Amino acid sequence: MSPTSLALPHIAKLHAYTPGLQPTEPGWVKLNTNECPYPPSPRVAEAIQRELGEAGATLRLYPNPKSSPLRATIAQLHGQGLSEAHVCVGNGSDDILNLLIRAFCTQQAPAGFTLPSYSLYPVLVGIQDGATSVIEFDRTMRLPVEKIAASSARAFFLTSPNAPTGVAFANAELERVLASYGGLLVVDEAYAPFARENALPLLARYPNLVVVRTLSKAYALAGIRVGYALAHPEVIGLLDRVRDSYNVNRLSQAAAVAALGDQPYYDGVVAKVVATRDRFVRDLTARRGWFTYPSQANFVFTEPQDARGATGPAVSKSAYDFLCAHQVLVRHFPSHALTAPFLRISVGTDAEMAVLSETLDAWLKSPNA
Amino acid sequence: MSPTSLALPHIAKLHAYTPGLQPTEPGWVKLNTNECPYPPSPRVAEAIQRELGEAGATLRLYPNPKSSPLRATIAQLHGQGLSEAHVCVGNGSDDILNLLIRAFCTQQAPAGFTLPSYSLYPVLVGIQDGATSVIEFDRTMRLPVEKIAASSARAFFLTSPNAPTGVAFANAELERVLASYGGLLVVDEAYAPFARENALPLLARYPNLVVVRTLSKAYALAGIRVGYALAHPEVIGLLDRVRDSYNVNRLSQAAAVAALGDQPYYDGVVAKVVATRDRFVRDLTARRGWFTYPSQANFVFTEPQDARGATGPAVSKSAYDFLCAHQVLVRHFPSHALTAPFLRISVGTDAEMAVLSETLDAWLKSPNA
Repeated sequence: MSPTSLALPHIAKLHAYTPGLQPTEPGWVKLNTNECPYPPSPRVAEAIQRELGEAGATLRLYPNPKSSPLRATIAQLHGQGLSEAHVCVGNGSDDILNLLIRAFCTQQAPAGFTLPSYSLYPVLVGIQDGATSVIEFDRTMRLPVEKIAASSARAFFLTSPNAPTGVAFANAELERVLASYGGLLVVDEAYAPFARENALPLLARYPNLVVVRTLSKAYALAGIRVGYALAHPEVIGLLDRVRDSYNVNRLSQAAAVAALGDQPYYDGVVAKVVATRDRFVRDLTARRGWFTYPSQANFVFTEPQDARGATGPAVSKSAYDFLCAHQVLVRHFPSHALTAPFLRISVGTDAEMAVLSETLDAWLKSPNA
Repeated sequence: MSPTSLALPHIAKLHAYTPGLQPTEPGWVKLNTNECPYPPSPRVAEAIQRELGEAGATLRLYPNPKSSPLRATIAQLHGQGLSEAHVCVGNGSDDILNLLIRAFCTQQAPAGFTLPSYSLYPVLVGIQDGATSVIEFDRTMRLPVEKIAASSARAFFLTSPNAPTGVAFANAELERVLASYGGLLVVDEAYAPFARENALPLLARYPNLVVVRTLSKAYALAGIRVGYALAHPEVIGLLDRVRDSYNVNRLSQAAAVAALGDQPYYDGVVAKVVATRDRFVRDLTARRGWFTYPSQANFVFTEPQDARGATGPAVSKSAYDFLCAHQVLVRHFPSHALTAPFLRISVGTDAEMAVLSETLDAWLKSPNA
């Protein structure tokens, strides 16, 4: 008997999510998964040390099943009248997105999202054998407010700042959606720390708003897997019924509390990334003349031009391949017409951005460009 | 608008899994969640130290999305011709059980399990709005081989040694099931390190067999959340489609590799727990005369008798309450007729078991017993 014949038919047909490459050899300039180029707060390693206890003795015990100290820290950090009851902590924000899909979406209750946006959403819906309600951006990448407001989606997942474009949506626009949309609006704010505005001030007024955050980007903690949802306590209560009791391990809970507690360090990291990003965007647009979306994230979405000034999927592919051959890793999304002519480049250190820029110069002089 | 009205109806009605109490104040003798009373291998803290790098710098990067080094370590440890392709690593074995339910079970493809057994199974099925196929034990706790073999369950979850009884099922019996059962047989071996036999030697012959393991018990690592499935590569491929790409964080991967690499330490811990368990069972049965199932796990399921020799749900409840009032925490499962007269007591250190025993003596002299 083939085990596949026992699996649910939609699982047997499913394609897994493709994460960005994580090379294990040294030597790569890694600008492909929007990690932070700077280390986390030094308080993180100290907190892990403390949590380990003598020779790791505390690890024999289960973690706090409600991540209570971490939830209290998060609520206090954001203010806005939030308490522990407004917070659900996940094993990365992907865990939170998964809980939301499982609690709210099915065949009869579609999950909505824009195209392009975070490519995990349709994968999570596919695992549930659920229905989707997809709204296409046009090249302006302006928020299709009316279409979302009129959507039949039970929950709509909006990445703001958006991925992979970096374009942020103003609270005024989100409020226009919330004024008439009847479903749950999930604003996935993985990149909001790098943006001018965020949706937190709207939480108190809209019980159908969920804001999702992660410590993977601005807190430089992709390796520990901590993300969270902020929402009405009723929403949090629903997520808690689907959440695994021990979804966040001891060391990650301790690390997250320490990182969130060091806001001066965080502010410094965000300021450095934003400064490098803005210089990089100016270089791409002013010096190279490449069309680049205004980014409010820690990555830049740019349309490479070859030596003759041509653009398109073949040009971006050529630049991607050349960079890759020279151990500079960026991201290329060839499967959608709006993304195929572009590259998504994470903001690294100034030194890494200099290597990237020199490698792009070399590509322009190469026979392929 | 109430957010609950937007949730899927089965989620709105769901009861969350109730984990054992995890008191945060000191002073408790904690024998309620089958944690290991001894610390993990000292190599674990060293490996976490190494993985942290200078001031936690590596934590800025995502973990290995396939847990490859850990999977290779697991395959090598168990031998039996297993390779990385036979291993899926989860954020605790609960993650693995969840992936199995999501890949194989639905309304039309029931999940099977025995009663009593691990109470998470029906919770995971409930989250999926799936159907169950339940097989009741009788008081002998002998494996209902024919009933399982004839079950209409698409996947059958068998805890061996069973929880909360500690009774183990022989491979000869599992083979009788596998000889005629047409679904996926999941043997949940969370407690197998404390048993005389395990199902690993059967893996090569049965493509519909899945063995689930955890590092939470015998490896003293409940705090890091690592469990795994061993199965035919086709089953592993199916689980990987449902699994989150980054489900196991960096520190947990490193800790698990280190713990599995220190088999002499592990052997020592298991031998100590088994010796304490066997002494404790003798004390309960020979000295107290309490009916106690033969345990092959790191806990004991015993039927307390009060001062007059009476047993039953009220007696076990009285013992539980008395222990709790004296800061000795054990587990009582009042919701099933076969478990209500019993207490499940995790095997602690000899000193902890002495406190437990003295507190039971005090209960017997108290006006309540």
